[in-house]
Amino acid sequence: MSFIAVLMGSESDWPIMQKCTEVLDRLGIGFEVRVTSAHRTPAATAAYVADAVERGCALFICGAGMAAHLAGAVAAHCVRPVIGVPINSGPLSGFDALLATVQMPGGIPVATVAVGGAGARNAAYLAAQILALGDPALQTALEADRERNREKVQAQNARVQSEL
Amino acid sequence: MSFIAVLMGSESDWPIMQKCTEVLDRLGIGFEVRVTSAHRTPAATAAYVADAVERGCALFICGAGMAAHLAGAVAAHCVRPVIGVPINSGPLSGFDALLATVQMPGGIPVATVAVGGAGARNAAYLAAQILALGDPALQTALEADRERNREKVQAQNARVQSEL
Amino acid sequence: MSFIAVLMGSESDWPIMQKCTEVLDRLGIGFEVRVTSAHRTPAATAAYVADAVERGCALFICGAGMAAHLAGAVAAHCVRPVIGVPINSGPLSGFDALLATVQMPGGIPVATVAVGGAGARNAAYLAAQILALGDPALQTALEADRERNREKVQAQNARVQSEL
Amino acid sequence: MSFIAVLMGSESDWPIMQKCTEVLDRLGIGFEVRVTSAHRTPAATAAYVADAVERGCALFICGAGMAAHLAGAVAAHCVRPVIGVPINSGPLSGFDALLATVQMPGGIPVATVAVGGAGARNAAYLAAQILALGDPALQTALEADRERNREKVQAQNARVQSEL
Amino acid sequence: MSFIAVLMGSESDWPIMQKCTEVLDRLGIGFEVRVTSAHRTPAATAAYVADAVERGCALFICGAGMAAHLAGAVAAHCVRPVIGVPINSGPLSGFDALLATVQMPGGIPVATVAVGGAGARNAAYLAAQILALGDPALQTALEADRERNREKVQAQNARVQSEL
Amino acid sequence: MSFIAVLMGSESDWPIMQKCTEVLDRLGIGFEVRVTSAHRTPAATAAYVADAVERGCALFICGAGMAAHLAGAVAAHCVRPVIGVPINSGPLSGFDALLATVQMPGGIPVATVAVGGAGARNAAYLAAQILALGDPALQTALEADRERNREKVQAQNARVQSEL
Amino acid sequence: MSFIAVLMGSESDWPIMQKCTEVLDRLGIGFEVRVTSAHRTPAATAAYVADAVERGCALFICGAGMAAHLAGAVAAHCVRPVIGVPINSGPLSGFDALLATVQMPGGIPVATVAVGGAGARNAAYLAAQILALGDPALQTALEADRERNREKVQAQNARVQSEL
Amino acid sequence: MSFIAVLMGSESDWPIMQKCTEVLDRLGIGFEVRVTSAHRTPAATAAYVADAVERGCALFICGAGMAAHLAGAVAAHCVRPVIGVPINSGPLSGFDALLATVQMPGGIPVATVAVGGAGARNAAYLAAQILALGDPALQTALEADRERNREKVQAQNARVQSEL
Repeated sequence: MSFIAVLMGSESDWPIMQKCTEVLDRLGIGFEVRVTSAHRTPAATAAYVADAVERGCALFICGAGMAAHLAGAVAAHCVRPVIGVPINSGPLSGFDALLATVQMPGGIPVATVAVGGAGARNAAYLAAQILALGDPALQTALEADRERNREKVQAQNARVQSEL
Repeated sequence: MSFIAVLMGSESDWPIMQKCTEVLDRLGIGFEVRVTSAHRTPAATAAYVADAVERGCALFICGAGMAAHLAGAVAAHCVRPVIGVPINSGPLSGFDALLATVQMPGGIPVATVAVGGAGARNAAYLAAQILALGDPALQTALEADRERNREKVQAQNARVQSEL
Repeated sequence: MSFIAVLMGSESDWPIMQKCTEVLDRLGIGFEVRVTSAHRTPAATAAYVADAVERGCALFICGAGMAAHLAGAVAAHCVRPVIGVPINSGPLSGFDALLATVQMPGGIPVATVAVGGAGARNAAYLAAQILALGDPALQTALEADRERNREKVQAQNARVQSEL
Repeated sequence: MSFIAVLMGSESDWPIMQKCTEVLDRLGIGFEVRVTSAHRTPAATAAYVADAVERGCALFICGAGMAAHLAGAVAAHCVRPVIGVPINSGPLSGFDALLATVQMPGGIPVATVAVGGAGARNAAYLAAQILALGDPALQTALEADRERNREKVQAQNARVQSEL
Repeated sequence: MSFIAVLMGSESDWPIMQKCTEVLDRLGIGFEVRVTSAHRTPAATAAYVADAVERGCALFICGAGMAAHLAGAVAAHCVRPVIGVPINSGPLSGFDALLATVQMPGGIPVATVAVGGAGARNAAYLAAQILALGDPALQTALEADRERNREKVQAQNARVQSEL
Repeated sequence: MSFIAVLMGSESDWPIMQKCTEVLDRLGIGFEVRVTSAHRTPAATAAYVADAVERGCALFICGAGMAAHLAGAVAAHCVRPVIGVPINSGPLSGFDALLATVQMPGGIPVATVAVGGAGARNAAYLAAQILALGDPALQTALEADRERNREKVQAQNARVQSEL
Repeated sequence: MSFIAVLMGSESDWPIMQKCTEVLDRLGIGFEVRVTSAHRTPAATAAYVADAVERGCALFICGAGMAAHLAGAVAAHCVRPVIGVPINSGPLSGFDALLATVQMPGGIPVATVAVGGAGARNAAYLAAQILALGDPALQTALEADRERNREKVQAQNARVQSEL
Repeated sequence: MSFIAVLMGSESDWPIMQKCTEVLDRLGIGFEVRVTSAHRTPAATAAYVADAVERGCALFICGAGMAAHLAGAVAAHCVRPVIGVPINSGPLSGFDALLATVQMPGGIPVATVAVGGAGARNAAYLAAQILALGDPALQTALEADRERNREKVQAQNARVQSEL
C-alpha cells in the first residue's frame, strides 16, 4: 500500500484542497489528485475507487461542498479509510457540507475534519498519522512537524510580546 | 412510463414512508417499494435504478435520514425526477437530512420536501402532480383531493367552533 | 401543456433566477417570466396562476427570499408541480428562505432545490426532467447535458492535473 | 372596530392557541376563532379576511407551524395589524415556523411573538395593548394584569423561600 | 396619543433604523428618536419610557443587536405596544438579536419584525397599521402605499420583461 | 463582601437552579435566593440589586430561559460580576437563552455558563473561584472538590472496567 | 502496535460507547476502555496517552458530549490517529459536541464521526479500516462485514415487501 | 494576587484580543499576554498555568476560535476563574467557538463572553469586576467607566438628534 488519493467534487474546491496536498508534499507522502463527482460522474468515481484500491491506494481524502456526498460515496465503494473535508462553498457557510459528510450511517464511516482550509490541512495530517502506523520514518516526520508547530507558536508569542 | 419507485435507506424509515405509499394508494398510482442504501448497497442501488428506468419507472421517491445521500445517488444515476424525503432519525432532528438532501450541486436536482411525515405525504402528492401532467384522470383526482382537503379544514373549523 | 412559468417575488431575485432561465433556454424549453409577490400582489399572483394554468402552464418555478412564501402560495392555488428556489437575500444567508419554502404541510408540496444559484439552475433541470416524461426529445437533451457535465468534470480534472 | 380574529392553520394548533383565547377572555376582548389555511384554503382565507375587516375586525392573530405562511397571507390581504404565533409542530422545533413568520419583506409586516404557548399568550397581550390605545378601560385592565403578574412573581418567590 | 418613539441601543444602529424613520416620515407619522441602552443606561431608559408614555407616546419601536434586550426592557416598563427590530450587528448575523427579541415570556410581548433593514421598514408599517385603527386618514394612506407597492412590483416586472 | 445572590426569572427555573445552590451549600458559601423577573418585575429587580449590593452581595447568579434578560438586566444595574445560566425552557432547547445571555454588548459583561443543569452547577463553581481569590479556605475547599472530582472519574472508570 | 484505546469523558457516555466496543469485539480487535476526562483529570489523561502509546496503542477513540474536548486533548498529546465521537448529552442535541470535536485547528486532526450511537459504531469501523491497512485478515473481516451489511439491507427489503 | 494572564491560541487572535488588553490598560490592571495553544503546545500551556498561578495570577482570559479548547484546558489545570472569548475565525462565524467554550461539564466552569470583539472587551470588564471585589479603587474606576459609558450613549443620542 503506497499512495493516497485526493479527490474533490469540483475544480472550484482545488484552492482549498491544495492546502491538503501542500502538507502531503512536505511530509513526503505520495498522492494522486482527481476531480471526480459523486453526482456528476458516479460511475467514473466508483470505477476510480476500485482501480485505485487495486493499485494500492491506502486511503482517500475527499473534499466537497453543499450536499457533500463524495466522501460517503467513496466510503460506500471500499473498506479503506476515507477522510472527508467539508468545503464552505455556497451560501450556508459549510454547515450543509459538514452535516452531509459527518452524519454517516453505521457501518460506513467517514473520518470528518474541520470545514474549509483548516480541515484540508488536517486531512493530510490525519492521513499521515494513519500511514505512520506502518512507517516509522513518517512517524518521526510527524513528531518533527509537531515540534515545529510548537516552535511556531513560540515564535508567534515572541512577536506578540514585541508588540506590547 | 407507468410506475413510481419508493426507496428508503433503511427499514427503520418505513413507518414514515408508509405515509407516502398510503397517499399513492389512495390516488391509485402504481408503485413499488425497495429498501436500498446509497452507502451499504451502492451497486445494487445503481443497478436497481437502471433496471427500474428500463421497466418504465417514471420517477423516484427516496427517504433517508442523517447524511441522507439516497436521493442524490439515485439522481446521479438517471435523469428521471427524484423526490427526496429527509427523515428525522438521529439526534439532529432532521436538520442533517434536510441539508444533505436539498443542497445538491447544479445539474443534479433533488426535489426536496419537508422533514418527516408531512414530507413523506407531500412526496406522494408531488409525484402525482408530475404524473398528472400526462394523465387527466389523475389531474381530476388531485383536484378532488384538494377539494376534500378544503372540506377537512372546514370540518376542523366546525369542531373548534363547537368547543367555544 | 407547453410552457413553464418562472416567477420571483422581487426584481432583486432576477440575477439569481437568470441562472434558471439560461438552462431552460439551453434545453429549448419555453417559459415566461413574471415578477409577482405572494405578499405585495397576492391577488395578481392568484389570478396569474389561474390564467397560466388555463393557458397551458405545465409547472411553476418560484424564487423568493426571507419568509419565502411565493412557491407555497402558487402551490396553494393549483395542482401543478411547483418548484421553489430559496434565495439567500437578507442577513440570515437563506436559512430562512429554505425553511419557509420546504416545510410545507401535507397535501400542498413544493419541490425545493438548493439555496441560491445552484438551486436556480437545478430548478430548470428538475422542470426539464418532469417535462421529459412526456417528451422523448427533451429526455435525449437531458442525457446529452448529463454527458457534457461528465466531460466538464473530466476537463476540470485535466486542468488540475496540469497544475500538479 | 370591535373584535379580534384568531386564526390557525390546522385544528392541531388549537391546544396552543387556546392559551391565546384564554387571555382574551380574561381581558374581556371580543374575538372569533377560525381554522383556515393559507395553503389548503387560500381563497376562503382571503375571503374571510375581507369579510372580517368589513365587519370591523381590528386585528388578526394567526398561529401556524412549519412553513408558517398564514400570518403573512393575512397580512398580504389587508392593512390591519397581524400578529403571528409560530407553532412548534414538526421535527424542527418551531425554528421553521419562526423564520417563516418573522422574516417578512418590507411593506407587509407580521408582528411575531415567541414560538409556542408563551407566544400564544403574548399574542393576546399584544392585541390588548394595541386595542387599549383607544380603550382606556382596557388600558386599566392591562395595568391591573401587569400588577397581578408582579404579585405572581412575589408569590413564586415566597414559595421558593419556604423551600429553602 | 400622538407620537411614536424610535429607540436604538447604539448610534451604530442608526443607519438601519433610518429605514424605519423614512417610512414614518413618508406616512406623516410624528416620531421622536433616542439612542438609549437597556444595558448601558437602564435608568435613563426606564425614565424615558415613563416620560414618553406621560407625554402621549402611543408605541415604541426598538432596534438593537446581539443580546438585544432594549425592546424587552421597554416592554417591561409600560403596557404600550413595543415593536422590536433585531439588528444584524456582530458575527452571528442577527440570529442572536432575533431570538433575544422574540422569545419573550408570557405577559410581556414584543412585536418582532424581520432582522435588519426589512424589519426596520416593517416596524414603521406595523406602527402605522396600529395607529390607523384610530385614524382613518392614516388607514387611507396605508392603503395607498400598498397600492404603490403593487405598482412597484408591476414596474419591476416590466423591467424584467424588457430584459428578456 | 459576604454573600451571593441566586436569582431566577420564574419559579419554574428552581429545579435547575437548585443544582447551583446545592454546590454553594456544599462549599459553605452563603447565599440568598430570589425569584425576580427582568420583564415582569423590573423595578423590583433593580431595587433588589441596589439593596443587595448595599448589603454586601459580592456577585449575582441569574438563571433564565427563552429571551433570557435577567442576567443582563442585573449586570446593567451594578458593576458586580454577574453569572448567567441559560435555562432550556421552551421549544428552542435553550439556544435562545444562550444567545440572549452571552451576546452582551461591550462594557456590560455576563459570565455565561452552559445551558441547563451543568451550567447551574458551574455557576456555583465559578462564583466560588471568584470568592476564593480573597478567601484561602475556599481556595482549599475548591482544590479538595477538584480532587474529589478526579476520584469520581476514577470510580466511574473502575465501574466501567468491572462491566467489561 | 496492537490495541485500541476507547476513552470517554464520563461514565454516562458508556451506554453509547458500548456500541463501539461491540463492533470491535465482533471484529476481533483488541481494545481497552478508560473513563478519563480532558477537564476533570487532564494530567491523568495526558499520562494515560503517553503510557498507552508506549504500550503500543495504535489509535484512540474518544467519546464526549457538550464542549467535547477529550478527542482534541488526546490528539494534542500524541501523533496517533484519534477518532472523536460527539455524544448527544445535554440540551443542545449534540450540535455542541459535534462542533467542539470536528473544528480542530490545522496540525492536530480529530477524525470525527456522526453524533451518538451511529458515530460510536462507525468509530469502531473506522479504526478497523485503519488497522486493516497492515492486517490482511482484518481487511477480509471488514469485507465480510460489508457483505453482511448488504445482506441485512436485503433482509430488511424482504420484510418490507412482505408487509405490502 | 496581582495580575491577569491574557492567553490566545494563535497570533491571528491578537487583533481581537487587543480590544481586551486596551480595556485592561485603561483600567490600570496589570496583565501579561501569551500565545499558547491547547492543541499545539498543551504541555507548555499546562506548565504556564501552574507557573502563572504560582506567580500570583488571579485569573485567566483565553481567546480561541473554532473548536476553542484553550479556556477549558486552562480551567482544567487550576481553580482560578477562567474567562473564555470565542473568536469568530473560520467559516462557521464563531458558533463553533461559542459552543466549544461555554458548554463545559459540571465542576470546570468557563465564564464565557460574547463572540469576537465585544466579547474581548467584556472579558476585560468581567476580570476587572472580579478583581474589584478586593480592590476599592478598581471598583471606583469601574463605576466611573460605567458613568462614561452613559455619557457616551448621551453623546451618541445628541449626534443622532442633530442629524434629524
